[in-house]
Amino acid sequence: MSLVIIAPSKKNTRFWQQSLSESLAQLGLRVNVEIWPEVEKPEEVLMAVTWKHPGESLYAYPHLRVVSSMGAGVDHILKDEHLPLHWQVVRIVDQELTTSMSNYLLAAVLNYHKQMYRYLQLQQHQQWGYTETPEIPLKPGILGLGELGQDIARKLQALGFDVAGYSRSPKELEGIHTYAGEGELDAFLQRVNLLICLLPLTRQTRGFLNRALFARCQPGTYLINVARGEHLVEEDLLEALQQGQLAGATLDVFRQEPLPADHPFWKQPDIVITPHIASVTKPEAAIPQVAENYRRMIRNEPLLNKIDRLAGY
Amino acid sequence: MSLVIIAPSKKNTRFWQQSLSESLAQLGLRVNVEIWPEVEKPEEVLMAVTWKHPGESLYAYPHLRVVSSMGAGVDHILKDEHLPLHWQVVRIVDQELTTSMSNYLLAAVLNYHKQMYRYLQLQQHQQWGYTETPEIPLKPGILGLGELGQDIARKLQALGFDVAGYSRSPKELEGIHTYAGEGELDAFLQRVNLLICLLPLTRQTRGFLNRALFARCQPGTYLINVARGEHLVEEDLLEALQQGQLAGATLDVFRQEPLPADHPFWKQPDIVITPHIASVTKPEAAIPQVAENYRRMIRNEPLLNKIDRLAGY
Repeated sequence: MSLVIIAPSKKNTRFWQQSLSESLAQLGLRVNVEIWPEVEKPEEVLMAVTWKHPGESLYAYPHLRVVSSMGAGVDHILKDEHLPLHWQVVRIVDQELTTSMSNYLLAAVLNYHKQMYRYLQLQQHQQWGYTETPEIPLKPGILGLGELGQDIARKLQALGFDVAGYSRSPKELEGIHTYAGEGELDAFLQRVNLLICLLPLTRQTRGFLNRALFARCQPGTYLINVARGEHLVEEDLLEALQQGQLAGATLDVFRQEPLPADHPFWKQPDIVITPHIASVTKPEAAIPQVAENYRRMIRNEPLLNKIDRLAGY
Repeated sequence: MSLVIIAPSKKNTRFWQQSLSESLAQLGLRVNVEIWPEVEKPEEVLMAVTWKHPGESLYAYPHLRVVSSMGAGVDHILKDEHLPLHWQVVRIVDQELTTSMSNYLLAAVLNYHKQMYRYLQLQQHQQWGYTETPEIPLKPGILGLGELGQDIARKLQALGFDVAGYSRSPKELEGIHTYAGEGELDAFLQRVNLLICLLPLTRQTRGFLNRALFARCQPGTYLINVARGEHLVEEDLLEALQQGQLAGATLDVFRQEPLPADHPFWKQPDIVITPHIASVTKPEAAIPQVAENYRRMIRNEPLLNKIDRLAGY
């Protein structure tokens, strides 16, 4: 039996290899953990652990049954349109990653609310920018109510904000005003003035943050995108900022990463850019989950954090 | 009966005058609200509502019984050393102010934790600064466990941080490691690596944040001061930063405000400066409290939010 790690963009695949072997051994499993492209016996591979696998790299293993993401996102797996439906796809769910994401989002929300970046700019010119009413009244709205969306919704509510949430299928969350489906999207957008995008990236949500959506928002809405760069039509954001339809944006993800040095976002004064650091899956948390799913796979038990292949999340 | 507002630095004393008259009328009280220095009958003044009153301005009223701050701080009243001990001093306690302060502190803590300012600086040079482990592990410690200190302690704990608190007299807070008095200060300082100063300004706490205290901190401790500028010995902070004993600071209050344009803090890369905006008392919240205390005063009922004149807070 063996398992292959396919993650050419990651620098820590050796660490994954060793640590995952140890985790599997602790479960009493003798599994050969290999790193793509050096796989000795492709016919023995039952599971692939991947991050942004190249083109055809998944198709060399006739007995592959499970593809596990090395992180929370699976869009990099599912965008492969030839993926056999009988392969099971699983993701990592990590409380530390959730905490880390919510901490980033709280910083982004509160920096806007308290105008912290304005003061930082004033500091650079040795200017004291006291004003009587510096706080921007906020009504945050969360797009996507999965693990991450629910966590930040609850935390913002605990801080006293009037929070709304939007998801594809109806969800109930105590103290949060929830909306579901296209039919309730306008009511949601008209209620909020700060949008946090935590949608999964699927065929339906690609380009969701576009000119048409911005036009349905309240004028002066602020945007935070920490999901995927592909959710946002970047030129539409620039237009909405220019027209004042959006007040500004904090972006952690981009269509192309690293963001090219000549990208217009860099010099946009109302865009805050961070280099995809909102949350990072720690291998220490992910590896035991991968090992446990390997154990479940060979015993034909239900896998943890399995993706609904039709929904795409 | 009358009441005098003494707040020459405030621009909204007319608003206070009108709104406070209305609040008093709603309580069935006919009180003449005057603005210093135009007081017709000083002998009728029973209460002074003040913010940084000038020198002798409180001593023209032979029947004065209560001095109320217009905000949460009373140091501007108590620093007047001739204040008769039989005058009662009261402050404003406002949930919105508490929320506003905690929001600022969360932004400051999380900006440091997530290195947000570093990314902002990189953005100015169109630089993508991705690193694998960008979060600084934090153990926040709160100096001062009054209304504000307890609120931020609970909120940081709810976000998953290991929080400690220090106060003059022992306090118990669920889930927070509390320390009290000089005897436990070293244990507190050795436990934490981020200090939030929310102490009241008293004779004992003036200059509390000084070279000797910094030397007792863990090397690399981060400092946030939102209490009063007089808590900090400013030159000692510069020295501690230079020596690496402190990692940086976020300061909202200063010995002299506005901070003079030639002050060395402005150009210190590891100091974040905001212009005393962490929290602002809203007159809408403060005025009904002042009216209620006026009512209690004339009925000889216990006043709300009364200061212990000996402790100074």
